[in-house]
Amino acid sequence: MGGDLGPRAVFRACEISLAQHPQLFFTIFFTPDALPLLPDQLRSHVRVQLVSDCASIDSDLKPTDILRHKSASLWRAVESVSLGQADACVSGGNTGALMVAGKRLLGMLPGIERPAICQRWPTRKGHTLVLDLGANVDVSPAQLCQFARMASVLSPAEAPSVALLNIGLESNKGGESIRAAAAALSAEPQIHFQGFIEANQLLDGNVDVVVTDGFTGNIALKASEGAALFLIEQLKAAFSGSWYGKLVGQLAKPVLLKWRTRFDPARYNGASFLGLSGQLIKSHGGADAAAFANALSVAIAQAESGFSTALAQHFSNPDSPNPVADPLADQIK
Amino acid sequence: MGGDLGPRAVFRACEISLAQHPQLFFTIFFTPDALPLLPDQLRSHVRVQLVSDCASIDSDLKPTDILRHKSASLWRAVESVSLGQADACVSGGNTGALMVAGKRLLGMLPGIERPAICQRWPTRKGHTLVLDLGANVDVSPAQLCQFARMASVLSPAEAPSVALLNIGLESNKGGESIRAAAAALSAEPQIHFQGFIEANQLLDGNVDVVVTDGFTGNIALKASEGAALFLIEQLKAAFSGSWYGKLVGQLAKPVLLKWRTRFDPARYNGASFLGLSGQLIKSHGGADAAAFANALSVAIAQAESGFSTALAQHFSNPDSPNPVADPLADQIK
Repeated sequence: MGGDLGPRAVFRACEISLAQHPQLFFTIFFTPDALPLLPDQLRSHVRVQLVSDCASIDSDLKPTDILRHKSASLWRAVESVSLGQADACVSGGNTGALMVAGKRLLGMLPGIERPAICQRWPTRKGHTLVLDLGANVDVSPAQLCQFARMASVLSPAEAPSVALLNIGLESNKGGESIRAAAAALSAEPQIHFQGFIEANQLLDGNVDVVVTDGFTGNIALKASEGAALFLIEQLKAAFSGSWYGKLVGQLAKPVLLKWRTRFDPARYNGASFLGLSGQLIKSHGGADAAAFANALSVAIAQAESGFSTALAQHFSNPDSPNPVADPLADQIK
Repeated sequence: MGGDLGPRAVFRACEISLAQHPQLFFTIFFTPDALPLLPDQLRSHVRVQLVSDCASIDSDLKPTDILRHKSASLWRAVESVSLGQADACVSGGNTGALMVAGKRLLGMLPGIERPAICQRWPTRKGHTLVLDLGANVDVSPAQLCQFARMASVLSPAEAPSVALLNIGLESNKGGESIRAAAAALSAEPQIHFQGFIEANQLLDGNVDVVVTDGFTGNIALKASEGAALFLIEQLKAAFSGSWYGKLVGQLAKPVLLKWRTRFDPARYNGASFLGLSGQLIKSHGGADAAAFANALSVAIAQAESGFSTALAQHFSNPDSPNPVADPLADQIK
């Protein structure tokens, strides 16, 4: 149900994914009023199960209110993972409510106190994993270390380098809490801590993992998205501002298309809640069908790789080398 | 001396500004080793005073270390304002050191506890004033209210609308401190508080003023700059990736140039420390000569408008309407 574009985009994304993944089964949770929007192909698909009697919830509710709405599609979708009926859950619903449902229904992996939202960012050199992007407003230095270790397991790099997001590179920058976090990250032998990184270096790709609290990470993510969208809009306007611009714009179309594809946020849609005993993937609220399909691909790759199990093993035996390579390494190129 | 490009960019910026502003006088503070870089035109200019015997300081020093380096160019430049020898000081030096020097030498305006770094951002509808962009890592709700009031005086809008940067729009988003700040902003009758704004809405231009703490503001600013730079780079690469791309790129040059000019960070260089009893302008560390010249224009406009005096009057008589319109309104179009 979730997402600004409503169930139609999700339904279309399911059609795309079913065609791409012949072994994929879907259970789709929605409210009765979304039933008329369901395409015929999904209605009668052998690999689709429909649960159309979910209750709708107000997006203005507090995250913990989901505990009183256990017939909501969000809750029931997460529940299907906890009941072993699904290997992963993807939702475009309220992030806070998803986290509450995930913690309650799936539980935390041993040794991890809080789930963190982790996403791959495109960079000049490849990709960087950034977390937390909004699950936790306040985090302790110990929790930041857990985030760093989880993302280090997920990273395809052999000895993933980790940086901490700050407003400067010098050791005296930032507040007391960020300096305490840096000290804690430095002290953990399993974390290859490189020091601070500034927000304008996030796309340089000089580190494999960037850790930050969920407030700061969310600000950095949304500011980047906002700036990118603004520039793309302005470029369109520049090319449509004159007859000459329009003509050149037509000629430049293949070049511009290739350019946009390189960093299209839709290609990077699908953020993982790391730290839960189960796969829970958050899709961007504004995702269209193609973007939601990418979030589904993230979930499929992560479920197939058994990342959660591998992570659990790592935290029970922290001296072991990275047990899995990045399950998404072959998905997004 | 400050800035990544060194004194040469600053000297060139002074030449540009002298040509543009016939009534402008400069005192330029620098270290003896920068003397050979000084252009002849400045060396003998009637409206230029040179102070070439400043001490150099390490940019790795703590901000408060500037108090032990009172012969540094940064300190002496700010001092020239406190001594009434200059109407405004512009520096590309260490932000923290500038703030320490500004507070010590110029002092705070009555009723304002902390200086805030404020800058105009280009938006879809015009401009928005954003503060604090890095002066204060932690701020109290009362201090955020002071920031909002200062920027409301600076804004050209008649009843400037104010929003608080957060990770969501709903009242339950963010931590306790941000909710306390929202409550304080709502309670002040002089502030036209509109609620929260997300980082991806900063460029929408739906509000006149955005307030935030210096840590969050700095992350948002640098993330936006980093994303913009990345996109511009990628676009260049796309146009130079093939013979066709190169050809179309040549044809598109005037369109692309117009596009870049619309949001070129150099055009918006020059951030004001609001709240000090004197004009102190911070230039971006990476500013080139053209960008530094824009920071000089910000200082000139602000000094000519007597903004500090007007602000002091506003805070001593807070019921008065906005005493000055934005001194930059005619500068940046």
